[in-house]
Amino acid sequence: MRKHDDFSEWYNTLVEETDLVDKRYPIKGMNVWRPNGWALMSAIDRTIRREFDATGHQEVAFPLLVPQTEFQKEADHIKGFDAEVYWVTRAGVNELDVPLLLRPTSETAMYPVFALWIRSHNDLPLKTYQIVNTFRYETKMTRAFIRVREIHFFEAHTCHADEADAEAQVAEDREIMARLAHDLCLPYLLSRRPEWDKFPGAHYSLGADVLMPNGRTLQIGTIHHYRDNFARPYDIRYEQSDGEWEHVHQTTYGMSERLLGAVVAIHGDDKGLMLPPAIAPQQVVVVPILAKTEQERVTAAATALAARLRQAGLRVHLDDRDVRPGAKFYHWEQRGVPLRVELGARDLAAGVVMLARRDTGAKRTIADDDGLPEALHAELAAMANELRQRAERDLAERTVAVDDLYTEPPAGRVLRFGWCGSTDCADEIEKGWDMKFLGTAADDDERVACLVCGRPDGVVTYASRQM
Amino acid sequence: MRKHDDFSEWYNTLVEETDLVDKRYPIKGMNVWRPNGWALMSAIDRTIRREFDATGHQEVAFPLLVPQTEFQKEADHIKGFDAEVYWVTRAGVNELDVPLLLRPTSETAMYPVFALWIRSHNDLPLKTYQIVNTFRYETKMTRAFIRVREIHFFEAHTCHADEADAEAQVAEDREIMARLAHDLCLPYLLSRRPEWDKFPGAHYSLGADVLMPNGRTLQIGTIHHYRDNFARPYDIRYEQSDGEWEHVHQTTYGMSERLLGAVVAIHGDDKGLMLPPAIAPQQVVVVPILAKTEQERVTAAATALAARLRQAGLRVHLDDRDVRPGAKFYHWEQRGVPLRVELGARDLAAGVVMLARRDTGAKRTIADDDGLPEALHAELAAMANELRQRAERDLAERTVAVDDLYTEPPAGRVLRFGWCGSTDCADEIEKGWDMKFLGTAADDDERVACLVCGRPDGVVTYASRQM
Repeated sequence: MRKHDDFSEWYNTLVEETDLVDKRYPIKGMNVWRPNGWALMSAIDRTIRREFDATGHQEVAFPLLVPQTEFQKEADHIKGFDAEVYWVTRAGVNELDVPLLLRPTSETAMYPVFALWIRSHNDLPLKTYQIVNTFRYETKMTRAFIRVREIHFFEAHTCHADEADAEAQVAEDREIMARLAHDLCLPYLLSRRPEWDKFPGAHYSLGADVLMPNGRTLQIGTIHHYRDNFARPYDIRYEQSDGEWEHVHQTTYGMSERLLGAVVAIHGDDKGLMLPPAIAPQQVVVVPILAKTEQERVTAAATALAARLRQAGLRVHLDDRDVRPGAKFYHWEQRGVPLRVELGARDLAAGVVMLARRDTGAKRTIADDDGLPEALHAELAAMANELRQRAERDLAERTVAVDDLYTEPPAGRVLRFGWCGSTDCADEIEKGWDMKFLGTAADDDERVACLVCGRPDGVVTYASRQM
Repeated sequence: MRKHDDFSEWYNTLVEETDLVDKRYPIKGMNVWRPNGWALMSAIDRTIRREFDATGHQEVAFPLLVPQTEFQKEADHIKGFDAEVYWVTRAGVNELDVPLLLRPTSETAMYPVFALWIRSHNDLPLKTYQIVNTFRYETKMTRAFIRVREIHFFEAHTCHADEADAEAQVAEDREIMARLAHDLCLPYLLSRRPEWDKFPGAHYSLGADVLMPNGRTLQIGTIHHYRDNFARPYDIRYEQSDGEWEHVHQTTYGMSERLLGAVVAIHGDDKGLMLPPAIAPQQVVVVPILAKTEQERVTAAATALAARLRQAGLRVHLDDRDVRPGAKFYHWEQRGVPLRVELGARDLAAGVVMLARRDTGAKRTIADDDGLPEALHAELAAMANELRQRAERDLAERTVAVDDLYTEPPAGRVLRFGWCGSTDCADEIEKGWDMKFLGTAADDDERVACLVCGRPDGVVTYASRQM
């Protein structure tokens, strides 16, 4: 199972071998979350909730089904999703008068209700989010976490008094994305999607993309500014202090189980998963090393050690199964647990433990004293740094500036170049390279000549092949 | 809004006035969880997860959609749910070859996969659970949390080597039910459902029912023993140590958002909700009482107090809005927060706070010293006890023994009587009283003469009108 020989095979095998997912469910693209996968996804969800709760968002849960009549109110939106929705047409023995669709995303479920919730400027901003299952009838090849038909989905929806306040929300969302990516150790490119690739109904869309081992980019988050494009058809208005009624301005922020797919793909290696400490359901596994004698004493000491480390706020698993240590090491390495602490009779006598790190494989002896929990916390932080730096280095190395359209660009790279903004030049570039635009760099004001027409005031733009 | 004059009106108004739910979603019986309702449901979910994690269950998440072909494998099961399922027949522009149904419960989604997971006796017992949305096309009148079409649902599914081990699981489930009900302060009747009312496909079903203020019972939990009734059609087998292949025995345990409905209905009063401390998202609200002077000092002291109480493991909300105290008291009473702590300038000078309890309305001055957090913990425990005892008293008073079929029984009661076990006698009783059997008491071995035929060795049985 070699990651760099056959990424696709490596990924597909790993997600099943580490009990994240079972793909044998009898509907294509709808997978079973096994306990290990669900624990990891739930840890990511907790990180997301922490960020959104801390920024004054409120968690809600809207119904899954949307009446066709509501769905059709926003014309661009239905155009974007029409071919991808599942339809409920029958209930019990009755044909439904109005077919119901399974949400692909929840604008059309939420906004008729937002119109009831919002009356005055005192109701604004309204900041909500939910973590729910959504559905898309994918026709492309499916892949666990990355392209599925039932999607574990995060969506924040906010309403604001005016465009400027919505713009401030986008700025907050960008900060949240940065903090989440820090915890997941995932560097990303943030770009403003080109007009032809923005979210249906959006004023503009920002996309966060990571670079996968196979050289393709994967969108892991999107932030949309809707202006009042949805507020008008759904009639979401508020009374201003002067008595005039105005439409709200809206934003959304979407993420999904792709975050987990990116963690698996980017940090994993030929030994298995490698979990960022912030989201590892188990950060430390304690393994007692049992010889023929003193088994009880060593087991008791390992149990006490695990309890002490838990007290200190570490997430610890004690593996006291009757299995030889080598098999345990292999098992937990494959599952990506950041740190392993081994404790045998000789360690116990010497007042030390053996510490092994998943990312570097380094092993060292460390004193088992009051400072141990702090030392492990520090080791976790060091490992997170290492993961982050590896991935950042990789992204930097594989993002290459090009200034010549007619030289074949290197394979498996994100290309960075100047673009004047015209669709003609964009077409020329996309076709010439058989690549797609990610968009224009969100954090880069440099002016670069357009790769096609040579206009000198082009904007920094990324193109890639996409997952 | 008087609970005992018009329970239905009181309940329906309360769940909307306290922002638990919005019933104006454009599909009947599919409601929007507002932030306050979702926080409360999530608190109940956490309590449930704690119990099932502690008893070695593993959380999973299976797909929502089930192919019609899998659904039809268990004949009794489909008979039970046929009229109640929603069907997806179209995806994008395609008619589906095999219609997909929205799970009403997950036996038929899980068991084909369990058949792949289980190979040997080492794989047993398999203990899983999930918390998911399920769907039933209710034709009766819907009511928030109690009868809805999209249901927030808990389901545990276990597989065992033999009937005895499955029976031991049922015993564990009964203990879990008792602990959960203790936290929710909900006394219940546990009964074995009559044959004609057991879960489709079950060997037997136990039901836990609470008694609602309107005299009707509400099923809040069910525990089913399936024997190998599902294992046979789904071919879930394991290799015994002697090499023979045997079908597993299975159990399930189901609960839903009805737990929240019962909490609202049973503990609430004319002032609003009254939340059991174990699940109250906020256990204590701290309200600074601001006079014209010393506002900053009092606000700072209230803020520090809230932080100190949080440090001590209490869930605390500081209400420092610019609103008069009376409005705040009303607001938090209506939302059922167990304890209110008021702090004004005079209290600050005297080193005390004012403590008010939601259930009794009692107010008293209490020292604001190192012992305060402990005193509040004790007060929460006392309130939980009070809620539990009130509800237990009510259930005991309204469960009446009857020994005469032909005297009209008192209204709004659960009736307790002897029954010989024959369907003829049961019919006579159900028709005579226009009531339904809950079932035979699960914890009562007393022998009572059958109400109809007089056979002396009847079992203790309950009948009621049901929500």
